Amino acid sequence: MHDIFADQPRLLLTPGPLTTSPRTRAALDKDWGSRDQDFIALSEGVRTRLVALAGAAGSHVAIPLQGSGTFALEAAIQSLVPRHGRVLVLVNGAYGRRIAEMAARIGRLGRVLEAPENQPIPPEGVRAALAADAAITDVALVHCETTSGLLNPLAAIADTVREAGRRLILDAMSSFGAVPIDLRATPCMAVIGSANKGLEGVPGMAFVIADLAHLAGCAGYAVSLSLDLYAQWRGFEADRQWRFTPPVQVVAALAAALDQLEEEGGVPARHARYQANCAMLIAGMRAHGFSVYIDDAHQAPVIVTFRIPQGGWFDFGQFYAFLAARGVVIYPGKLTQEPSFRIGCIGAIGRPEMARALAAIHVFMAQHGSAKNKPQVSVQ
Amino acid sequence: MHDIFADQPRLLLTPGPLTTSPRTRAALDKDWGSRDQDFIALSEGVRTRLVALAGAAGSHVAIPLQGSGTFALEAAIQSLVPRHGRVLVLVNGAYGRRIAEMAARIGRLGRVLEAPENQPIPPEGVRAALAADAAITDVALVHCETTSGLLNPLAAIADTVREAGRRLILDAMSSFGAVPIDLRATPCMAVIGSANKGLEGVPGMAFVIADLAHLAGCAGYAVSLSLDLYAQWRGFEADRQWRFTPPVQVVAALAAALDQLEEEGGVPARHARYQANCAMLIAGMRAHGFSVYIDDAHQAPVIVTFRIPQGGWFDFGQFYAFLAARGVVIYPGKLTQEPSFRIGCIGAIGRPEMARALAAIHVFMAQHGSAKNKPQVSVQ
Repeated sequence: MHDIFADQPRLLLTPGPLTTSPRTRAALDKDWGSRDQDFIALSEGVRTRLVALAGAAGSHVAIPLQGSGTFALEAAIQSLVPRHGRVLVLVNGAYGRRIAEMAARIGRLGRVLEAPENQPIPPEGVRAALAADAAITDVALVHCETTSGLLNPLAAIADTVREAGRRLILDAMSSFGAVPIDLRATPCMAVIGSANKGLEGVPGMAFVIADLAHLAGCAGYAVSLSLDLYAQWRGFEADRQWRFTPPVQVVAALAAALDQLEEEGGVPARHARYQANCAMLIAGMRAHGFSVYIDDAHQAPVIVTFRIPQGGWFDFGQFYAFLAARGVVIYPGKLTQEPSFRIGCIGAIGRPEMARALAAIHVFMAQHGSAKNKPQVSVQ
Repeated sequence: MHDIFADQPRLLLTPGPLTTSPRTRAALDKDWGSRDQDFIALSEGVRTRLVALAGAAGSHVAIPLQGSGTFALEAAIQSLVPRHGRVLVLVNGAYGRRIAEMAARIGRLGRVLEAPENQPIPPEGVRAALAADAAITDVALVHCETTSGLLNPLAAIADTVREAGRRLILDAMSSFGAVPIDLRATPCMAVIGSANKGLEGVPGMAFVIADLAHLAGCAGYAVSLSLDLYAQWRGFEADRQWRFTPPVQVVAALAAALDQLEEEGGVPARHARYQANCAMLIAGMRAHGFSVYIDDAHQAPVIVTFRIPQGGWFDFGQFYAFLAARGVVIYPGKLTQEPSFRIGCIGAIGRPEMARALAAIHVFMAQHGSAKNKPQVSVQ
C-alpha cells in the first residue's frame, strides 16, 4: 500500500490509551527506586499538582493508585462510602452501570437512577430520589459518559446533592484535565481521574482526590486491601511512599505530562484545544453525512459517538481496518440501543492530527461511500 | 563530589522496581490502541509465554492484571478461593502476613501457620495443620520471602498439599523468572508473579497462572469487580482483550523483557546469573565483616538480608545516602525481630554492576568502617 499516511506516528482517537507526546514517553526511559528520595519528590509533586488542578488545595488530598481508572473508582466506592452507607448511582451509560455493579458487590448500592443514554441526568430526578430515600448517604455521577460522549450537568447535580446533605462521588475519568472542574464552586467529596485521559500521561495509574475531613474517618471501610484508599493515604502521610510497588515509569510520565499541561496554559487551554478538535471532527464527519448521537449542547469535547449510517453500504470493520492501516485508530460503539462507533478527540493531538484523520476518512468515503455521500473530489 | 561513580546509570539493588535494560525501556516509547490487533497479538504472546515459563501449557492459563503484584495476589485469593473456602496461610515474613490480611478481610482466612523469619516453613507442620482442620480448602505459600530473602521448600510443600487433597496458591512474586518453577513436577493451583522482578520488565502489571479446570468453576467468588480474575479471564477468552484499560507501554516492555529472557537461555540461565550475583555480593560483604541473616542453604538468589553491625559505628541512613549518591540504591530491612538492611541481586545486572556496588561499599568502609572492618587499601 503506497499512501500519504505511511511513516506517520499512530493516532489513537479512542477513549484511551491515547496518543502521548514524545516528551511524555521519553520520561519513561529511566529506572527509579520507589523508596528513594528522587521518586518520593516526584510522587509528591504529582499529588500536589493534581489537587491544585481540581481547585482543592487545603480541602482535599490526592491519593494515587496503581491500575486502571476502574481500580481507583472501585477504591473510592469501597473506601469512602461507609459500610452502612448506600449509594445512589446515576446511570446514563456503561460506566454508570459499572459503578452500580461495584457498589452492589459490597452491599452498598442504594438505588440506581437511570436516564436514556442520549440524555443528561436530570438534577430534579436526583432531588426526588434523595428526598424519597433517607438511607442514601452518597451519590455517584459519571461526569463525561464515555459510552456516548455526553457531559452530565455537574454543577446542578453537585448543588442538588449538597442541598440534600449527601456526598457526591464524581467519576471524572475522561473529563479530568479535559474539562474544568473547580471543587471550590462544585462540591464533591471525591473526584476520580486517570493519568491517561485529559492529563495525557500513559495508562497504569489513576487517582482519587478526596475530601480530607471525610477521608480521615474512613478507616476500615474498604473490603479489599489493595483498593483500600484510606490505608493508601495513611501510607503517603507516614513516609510519602506508595504502600505497594508503584509503576515508577508511569508516574514519571505523568509528571512530565503535567509539566506540559502547565506550559500549554492549564486546563482552560487544553479544554479549548479539545473543543477545537471536537468541532473539527464533527464538522468533517457531518460533511460526509454522518450523524452525531449526542445533541451539541451535551457533547463533551472528549469522544464523539456517530450513528452507523443506514443503507447497508457502511461496514464498521472495513472502516476501522481502513483507518488503522493508515495509522488512525478509532473505537467501536458501546450504546445498548443503537449501532454506533466512536472517534475520540483528546490526547496529544491538535488540528494537524485531526486533519490527518479526516483526510483518511475522506479517502475511505471516496472509495466506499454511498453515491449520496461520496466526496466529489477523490484523494488518492 | 568527584568520584568514579558519576555518569553511571543508577543501579537498583532492591526487591523492585529493578534495574531494567535499555532495550526493555526502549519498548516503552510507543503508543498502542488497547483494542487494536497489534496490541491484542502482543498481549496474547505475553500470556502464552508466561504459561510456558511455568511449564504449564495446557493445564493453566495466564491472567494478567493491572497494578502491582499485591493486586494480583489479592485477586487470586478473592477469585480462586471459594466463598465458603478457607485458606491456610504459611507465614515466615511480611508477605505471608499480608496474604493472611487479604484473606481475613473477605472472611476466607482459615488459619495461619507461622515459622520464624529465618526458618523455612516446615512441610511436616503443613501436613499436621491440614490434618487438624478439615475446613481448609487452600494453602497459600510465599516462595521467596522478600522480607528476609529466604526460599521456602516449594517442592516438599506442594507434595504435602497435594497428598492432603488441598489446593496450593504460590506467591512467586520475587521468584518467578529468577528460580525455576515447573508445574508439571510441582503442582500449584495458582502461581502469582510480577512483570518487574525476575522477568525484568517495568512495574505496573502482574499476573496469575491459574489451573484451568479449577478456574472454570470460579464465577462469582470475587467480591471486587476490578480484582475479579474469573471475569478478567472470561474477558480474554471472549475477545482476547483486557477488561479495563491495560498499561500498554508496561505490557510492551514485558514482551521485550521476555524476548531477552529467551535469548539469555531462559530461567535456568537467569537463575545462574542471579546466583553468581548473590554469591559475589555475599562474599564481598562478608569480606567487610557483614553477617548474612539467612543460612546459605535457604538463601534465594534474589535479595540478601544483612544484620546491622554491632558496635555503634554503622548508621544505615548514612550508608544508604552514601551509596545512593554513587548511584547504588539499596533497601531498608523489614524483619520484625532484628535490625537489618537488604541488598538485591536481581534485575538487568551482572558481574560489572555487582562489582560497582561493592566498590562503592568498599569506599564507604574505608571512610566509615570500624577499625576492625576497615579495608586495608583505601580507594578514593
